Amino acid sequence: MKPERQAHNVAPTPLLVAVDAVVFGYEAQRGVSLLLVQRRYGPHAGAWALPGGFVRPEESLEAAVSRELEEETGVKISYLEQLYTFGAPERDPRQRVISVSYFVLVRPDALRVQADTDAADAAWFALEALPSLAFDHGEIVATAVERLRNKLTYEPIGFELLEETFTLTELQALYESLLRRPIDRRNFQKKIRSLDILEELPETRKSPGSGRPARLYRFQRARYFELQARGQLFEVWI
Amino acid sequence: MKPERQAHNVAPTPLLVAVDAVVFGYEAQRGVSLLLVQRRYGPHAGAWALPGGFVRPEESLEAAVSRELEEETGVKISYLEQLYTFGAPERDPRQRVISVSYFVLVRPDALRVQADTDAADAAWFALEALPSLAFDHGEIVATAVERLRNKLTYEPIGFELLEETFTLTELQALYESLLRRPIDRRNFQKKIRSLDILEELPETRKSPGSGRPARLYRFQRARYFELQARGQLFEVWI
Repeated sequence: MKPERQAHNVAPTPLLVAVDAVVFGYEAQRGVSLLLVQRRYGPHAGAWALPGGFVRPEESLEAAVSRELEEETGVKISYLEQLYTFGAPERDPRQRVISVSYFVLVRPDALRVQADTDAADAAWFALEALPSLAFDHGEIVATAVERLRNKLTYEPIGFELLEETFTLTELQALYESLLRRPIDRRNFQKKIRSLDILEELPETRKSPGSGRPARLYRFQRARYFELQARGQLFEVWI
Repeated sequence: MKPERQAHNVAPTPLLVAVDAVVFGYEAQRGVSLLLVQRRYGPHAGAWALPGGFVRPEESLEAAVSRELEEETGVKISYLEQLYTFGAPERDPRQRVISVSYFVLVRPDALRVQADTDAADAAWFALEALPSLAFDHGEIVATAVERLRNKLTYEPIGFELLEETFTLTELQALYESLLRRPIDRRNFQKKIRSLDILEELPETRKSPGSGRPARLYRFQRARYFELQARGQLFEVWI
């Protein structure tokens, strides 16, 4: 049976296109957290949701993510990656909205947020204690968390969640928090050094509770992209 | 400086949303090929492009991909995965079109195609000898090919490009074609067997040019998804 055809001269129907951002933050004491906004207007007024909004005709998708995050929460993006496009016809009760979702990492200094415009409030929630979310945003978050954990098993990521300089102990604590399991310290240090993507700095830092000052490192972004382009980061490494 | 704000009561502008499919096929003699359609109408009339079209208000994105592929080329999808959403404001010279692209695998019996409706013609092109493509479709194809090759290094994929039953030599030839390099036969067979995702069948098949009949295998999809969900397929395996 032939499917129903739409003639070429029937004009296509434009649809609303939104961007939604799954924004991860991290602090040693609090662990991994997610930035949410409280909806000021309906549908789901008062419910927590991902920051985001409609794409304007003249702006790129990435520009829309940056603008909405700045407007709704005041945070600046350190790393952004497209996650997935959610397009089920019934995902918004008002009308059809296609949501292009983004995975965003921000640095600790961005953790103080300010709510504004369409958002009644903006706040960080521990990843393990999220409220129930508006629309299909719970599904979007689950997709982002799965992506983050899967990526981490075959590629070192997440440097954008730390300060510019960090100790290997701090990096290990981040990965343990993301993976929710302890990592062997010696193996970890051996592997991360062998990848040759960290610059060893002359400075050291004393961590609270530890006697010896520890070496500081900085992530070498250019070197990382070079190895990634050659496919050399795709290996089991953790 | 505060960014310009859009008040809540300004209605958002709907945009055109399209799906585009990067359809991979494979035959031992021809290697990996890509399904393209020749555009009947402008812009880029006469140029080759990815099969695809505008999403209708009532259909899901995946339903739109299936419908457009069926209409334009007659092929049936064996495996479909969302690739990336391309949304640069200037990507279509007529007006803003957001393209949600999909990565599609089809079986050898789908390689005979029929052009229809908006496509003047539809044909398979060897991956190494593609014509120049309309719009930003060249960039979409490059993204899909990179995804396919990267995925293959950390996860066994591509069974949907073969017949339902296949020999390990046939599977190895597919991977060598995708990766564009020879693979060590003994290592490959040891690894693929250890993953425990292939069902060994009682039947054998004689391949042309080889004396001994070889064992046939079938891909165990349910087992694969189970291992994937447990994260057990994410390891260097090739």
